[in-house]
Amino acid sequence: MSNTGLNRLSACEIADGIAHRKFSAEEVVRDCLERIDARDRQVKAWAYLDPDLALKQARALDGKNENGPLAGVPIGVKDVIDTFDMPTDMGSPIYRGNRTFADAPSVALARRAGAVILGKTVTCEFAGLTPNLTRNPHDPERTPGGSSSGSAAAVADFMTAAGYGTQTGGSVLRPASFCGVVGYKPSYNLISRGGMKFAAESRDTIGVLVRTVEDADLLSSVLTGRPRLRARSGAPKIALCRTHLWEAALPESKQAIEEAAQRLRLAGASFREIHLPGSFSALQEARTVINPYERARALAHEWNTNRTAISAGLTAQIEQGLSIPFDRYIQSLQRVKQCRDEIPAVFGDADVVLAPCVTGEAPLGLQSTGDTRFQEFWTALHVPAITLPSHKGPNGLPIGIQLVARIYDDENLLASAQWVWQRLVAQKGFLHADQQQF
Amino acid sequence: MSNTGLNRLSACEIADGIAHRKFSAEEVVRDCLERIDARDRQVKAWAYLDPDLALKQARALDGKNENGPLAGVPIGVKDVIDTFDMPTDMGSPIYRGNRTFADAPSVALARRAGAVILGKTVTCEFAGLTPNLTRNPHDPERTPGGSSSGSAAAVADFMTAAGYGTQTGGSVLRPASFCGVVGYKPSYNLISRGGMKFAAESRDTIGVLVRTVEDADLLSSVLTGRPRLRARSGAPKIALCRTHLWEAALPESKQAIEEAAQRLRLAGASFREIHLPGSFSALQEARTVINPYERARALAHEWNTNRTAISAGLTAQIEQGLSIPFDRYIQSLQRVKQCRDEIPAVFGDADVVLAPCVTGEAPLGLQSTGDTRFQEFWTALHVPAITLPSHKGPNGLPIGIQLVARIYDDENLLASAQWVWQRLVAQKGFLHADQQQF
Repeated sequence: MSNTGLNRLSACEIADGIAHRKFSAEEVVRDCLERIDARDRQVKAWAYLDPDLALKQARALDGKNENGPLAGVPIGVKDVIDTFDMPTDMGSPIYRGNRTFADAPSVALARRAGAVILGKTVTCEFAGLTPNLTRNPHDPERTPGGSSSGSAAAVADFMTAAGYGTQTGGSVLRPASFCGVVGYKPSYNLISRGGMKFAAESRDTIGVLVRTVEDADLLSSVLTGRPRLRARSGAPKIALCRTHLWEAALPESKQAIEEAAQRLRLAGASFREIHLPGSFSALQEARTVINPYERARALAHEWNTNRTAISAGLTAQIEQGLSIPFDRYIQSLQRVKQCRDEIPAVFGDADVVLAPCVTGEAPLGLQSTGDTRFQEFWTALHVPAITLPSHKGPNGLPIGIQLVARIYDDENLLASAQWVWQRLVAQKGFLHADQQQF
Repeated sequence: MSNTGLNRLSACEIADGIAHRKFSAEEVVRDCLERIDARDRQVKAWAYLDPDLALKQARALDGKNENGPLAGVPIGVKDVIDTFDMPTDMGSPIYRGNRTFADAPSVALARRAGAVILGKTVTCEFAGLTPNLTRNPHDPERTPGGSSSGSAAAVADFMTAAGYGTQTGGSVLRPASFCGVVGYKPSYNLISRGGMKFAAESRDTIGVLVRTVEDADLLSSVLTGRPRLRARSGAPKIALCRTHLWEAALPESKQAIEEAAQRLRLAGASFREIHLPGSFSALQEARTVINPYERARALAHEWNTNRTAISAGLTAQIEQGLSIPFDRYIQSLQRVKQCRDEIPAVFGDADVVLAPCVTGEAPLGLQSTGDTRFQEFWTALHVPAITLPSHKGPNGLPIGIQLVARIYDDENLLASAQWVWQRLVAQKGFLHADQQQF
């Protein structure tokens, strides 16, 4: 297997190479397709792939005189987000072959910027907890995480430079951490959610899976309209937050956080510790109310028409959601809002918060996509979050750290993440899948 | 024309009559279709109507042993909300004949409760400001308001008991006021927005257009999962808010508010006056930033593929949205959030706020759907709002008053509105369209 394939380049490198006519979009797509052909029978990251359609897009781009900021960048789109030229199956037999009239705005904006929509990536059933076929590219006996399983695995395995995910609990950051890539969930509502299937609408957020922080910046700048980052002039102020769930973390995740904190402190970051108020413990219970309540509404049509085609786990969640009293739902929304309002005081003057991202390495087995707790309460708070593939666990598998910022402070989050990246990740190289062939 | 048609019944009366087998769903639909046949060539409220499909739904309901809470209630669905068995044209030639795989959750929940989806109602282009064909049933030379033009006109004209609307600025309450019906916009995010086309996602809210407050309660209880109202035990505490826009109101709208306040005070409501903080003046400017910014993203696919089929007005809005700097957008979001956070203090102990709903009667001409200002800043604040057809203007046309409550306090809003209804509207009878034939 060649190590110099264009499929290994970052999104920034691809866009730059195409702008400077070092290679063509078609060549990039060909290398991605070759990698997919070699690996996807095992990894199963793709729900839909039409090589001819991908190549046709690439050739159309190559024929243009002007290049957008995503020129030639291949993107795998999570299969709960609409694409006008590919089916959107939602990880459910109910939607097999479902064609939509339009691209979701998130897809259309990327196309406008020159991206190649390479294919649709595997999602858990309706972006929920029921696992689908994808395996962790580092170890086929382990979960890739979910529900953005396919995008995380495809990016980690060099099948595409970028993938879209959606996060309601931890569906972008957890698979990113388990597969060893960067997962970035922007502030709530910052990327248009038109044309995506809702799981729990008051939390659902579209995010990106990529291999560098620079790429997270590039993609999200196109999708949100934010200008590209300027580098930080100084070291960020970091608040270490072990969270109220600290005891649920395995030693390797704890060590990742402590080691990261130590190295970043030595590198010049100002550090202090913060503790989440006791009121934040309401977030965990709120999830067990809000998510099923909203999910049961989001899947009303499927419940009406195709109930038997819904998995047992999701059926139970819908039934639970339909049984929750409205008052309890509203109380939960109110409690979560109170926590959101406390965030500025909790974070103080910190640029970002450093917190565990996952319990540990991707667990063995494909029956669960892993523990959502370390990701989900930040999602509920609507704050932007990013994971960097900075550490390894006892089995040599990736463990990400998580950085979090205030709502709408995505620029600060990404700039700080880039500073951290340069000190924790860039020198180490990646934990790439093909270092551990299967 | 018969005055005893079943099409004249309220949703509550229909559901009750069907539950007690006084008449069938098919008879209700036949009377609605007859009314539509007689009137819609002039009113033009319907974007899609298949009489056979409506009758088929009704007969299927009549064949069932159990009746849901909306048994036999005919609903017109605004043409930006998906229906699996009818096209969704978005008020745009781009989407002519567009078929979707699934019902929007808001539609599926109504079907589950026994409603008949009668047809699709006319919307302004993509739920925006570009008028469509509908005329005000009280006077064909006047606008019905927009963007939920068809639902408001169809409900006012007794073609259907209920209609769905969406409100980004004032698209439910303004047409409701202009057409003389009840328009209710729940708290933001309370009715699932799956399967609807976004206009400005941080504001878009699905609402209902009906002829009584009781019907607003019935429909929204099904769509949100809230139990039906219990009647208020005492008079509500009402805060009179003339708003910072008071001078923009015509005398008839000012009179409606003053007269309503006087009568409600005499009826026993406790009254005090509140003033919006100066910071709320930021809301008007925020709208000119947030709406175009989000609209330009929401219509990314249409902009990519069918730009020439977009109206001049909407084209200008998209171009403006694409030119607004991200920082300005974020600052606007932040300012609006600050206003939202001030609401509890501003409202104090009031159950509801009484405020103008519209500048005045539906204006002459079909080139504009009217002034959005009195509705839109409440929408931006995410609070629930309802208009009641309580007054008439100098031309005998309806003028609604507006009641507003705290976010998620929809039960209080509706219970207070019901109290107000009984004192201001129930005794007067309606301002129904057929009192002024054209």
